Amino acid sequence: MTAFNTGISDLAAASETAFTRALAETARAVEGKLDWLLPDVPGNRLRSAMRYAALGGGKRLRPFLAVQSAALFDVAPGKALRVGAAIECLHCYSLVHDDLPAMDDDDLRRGRPTVHRAFDEATAILAGDGLQALAFEVVADVQTHDDPAIRSTLVLELAKAAGETGMVGGQMLDLLAEEKPFANYAEVAAMQGKKTGALIRFSCEAGAILGGADRSALAKYGETIGLAFQIADDVLDVESDAAELGKATQKDKGKGKATFVDLLGLDGAKREAARLTDNAVGVLAGYGERAELLRDAARYIISRRS
Amino acid sequence: MTAFNTGISDLAAASETAFTRALAETARAVEGKLDWLLPDVPGNRLRSAMRYAALGGGKRLRPFLAVQSAALFDVAPGKALRVGAAIECLHCYSLVHDDLPAMDDDDLRRGRPTVHRAFDEATAILAGDGLQALAFEVVADVQTHDDPAIRSTLVLELAKAAGETGMVGGQMLDLLAEEKPFANYAEVAAMQGKKTGALIRFSCEAGAILGGADRSALAKYGETIGLAFQIADDVLDVESDAAELGKATQKDKGKGKATFVDLLGLDGAKREAARLTDNAVGVLAGYGERAELLRDAARYIISRRS
Repeated sequence: MTAFNTGISDLAAASETAFTRALAETARAVEGKLDWLLPDVPGNRLRSAMRYAALGGGKRLRPFLAVQSAALFDVAPGKALRVGAAIECLHCYSLVHDDLPAMDDDDLRRGRPTVHRAFDEATAILAGDGLQALAFEVVADVQTHDDPAIRSTLVLELAKAAGETGMVGGQMLDLLAEEKPFANYAEVAAMQGKKTGALIRFSCEAGAILGGADRSALAKYGETIGLAFQIADDVLDVESDAAELGKATQKDKGKGKATFVDLLGLDGAKREAARLTDNAVGVLAGYGERAELLRDAARYIISRRS
Repeated sequence: MTAFNTGISDLAAASETAFTRALAETARAVEGKLDWLLPDVPGNRLRSAMRYAALGGGKRLRPFLAVQSAALFDVAPGKALRVGAAIECLHCYSLVHDDLPAMDDDDLRRGRPTVHRAFDEATAILAGDGLQALAFEVVADVQTHDDPAIRSTLVLELAKAAGETGMVGGQMLDLLAEEKPFANYAEVAAMQGKKTGALIRFSCEAGAILGGADRSALAKYGETIGLAFQIADDVLDVESDAAELGKATQKDKGKGKATFVDLLGLDGAKREAARLTDNAVGVLAGYGERAELLRDAARYIISRRS
């Protein structure tokens, strides 16, 4: 079984350098793509806020998953990078809106003031709205793929992952849990499966869509690591401090929400995350050596410190 | 020249019944389509808020424009109706977000409490976000058109109309005008061209896109009536009371923003709207009799009372 949070397993350690390098390389490429999609326009408040929200941070794990899953099918990296940048636009917009005073009311994100703190609430709402529209604009553009059927499928699946059946629906469930805490593991898992799981799953499926290939294994992999990611987040939330994480910790506890750690215990949560990681690694068996960086990504998700 | 706001011209009066009937028919069809896309799920707060925002009101002028422009190219009405419903999802989301306390802070919309008043701010933000995603999901679906190239083009153009280059960008300019009022007609026109014009223009172009036809005349028509629509709105704002309009009036004046009426005078604004309407009617000459309902729509825009 994969180790959790203590020096990672030997296998993971052996490929850690290649993985870390690849992750950092994708992050740089995504940053460059977003900077190119949203060039600085001095004096333009909306553009400045969109850049502030989208640039300068994050592990860019979702684009990494898109790029690596696309590599399984020999898709040109530039195409996957555009989809990855679109996914980041959606992810970043959701962070901006989730941080708003009417939602989670956060002042700190990635160690910097949140968008509504650095600008103002109206600008933050609009920057989020604009980033969501940009995500679909980027995916629908012919530069993403010359086959319009593939572009349409990407838009359709991205919209499902973003909307009521995905991210937005999950955030609503999460907010409602402040009044009526989750009763069991299945309820938290269902909420997280929408709130963060749907977009992680799409990131993994995107490569297969771009490659015109069967998506089922990558969908399963994505679903599984998405859940492991959230369990690991709850563990990190308990074990880390704000300085290390770059955002406030243990906020859920303060709001009376039940987390994975509450429901499974700290050790139980770690065991469950490790079990899911092993499953995710196994699901990719059919792709052989080529999927090694994706397997590393699954292991990384429960070994990361932030 | 087209008359303004006083019993409409003879030509318009002659076809008023056919136009009014067609407009009401499209409104009913759009309502049905939105109800079908967002079926009621008792106890689901997000769904309830999305239904509250999208159903039960509005002239549905944008879908009417899409359906009528599609009819020029013998596109099946059901396809245009899906695009029209998607446009309404986007339009309604923008109203929900614009009404928020951090934005225009409105309590009343279409004679009912705004979404954040009827629900709460967090739910309103999420309902808007979900409606935006739904718009793209609907357009990208194969039911909208069996040619994926057409679906992709629709998504691309809709995203541009919705985002920073369109609606969202215009709303930002409008908010900034509270601090630095518009200096002249061109500045207000530029703001409105983005805030409301871009989506009206897309509504008109959508028919040509669905029909695989040249879009230039419909784009020009859409741009022109979009501007006329906004000038007429400013005139209505001065001449109507809240009961008739279903929302607060003369809010812009209270915020120190310069409106079209401020910059052109009441008579000047009416003359400009009438001039634009005549232009829009003329642009459609090449489509002959088939475009009569679109010409009526242009005349209606400056003769409406709400």
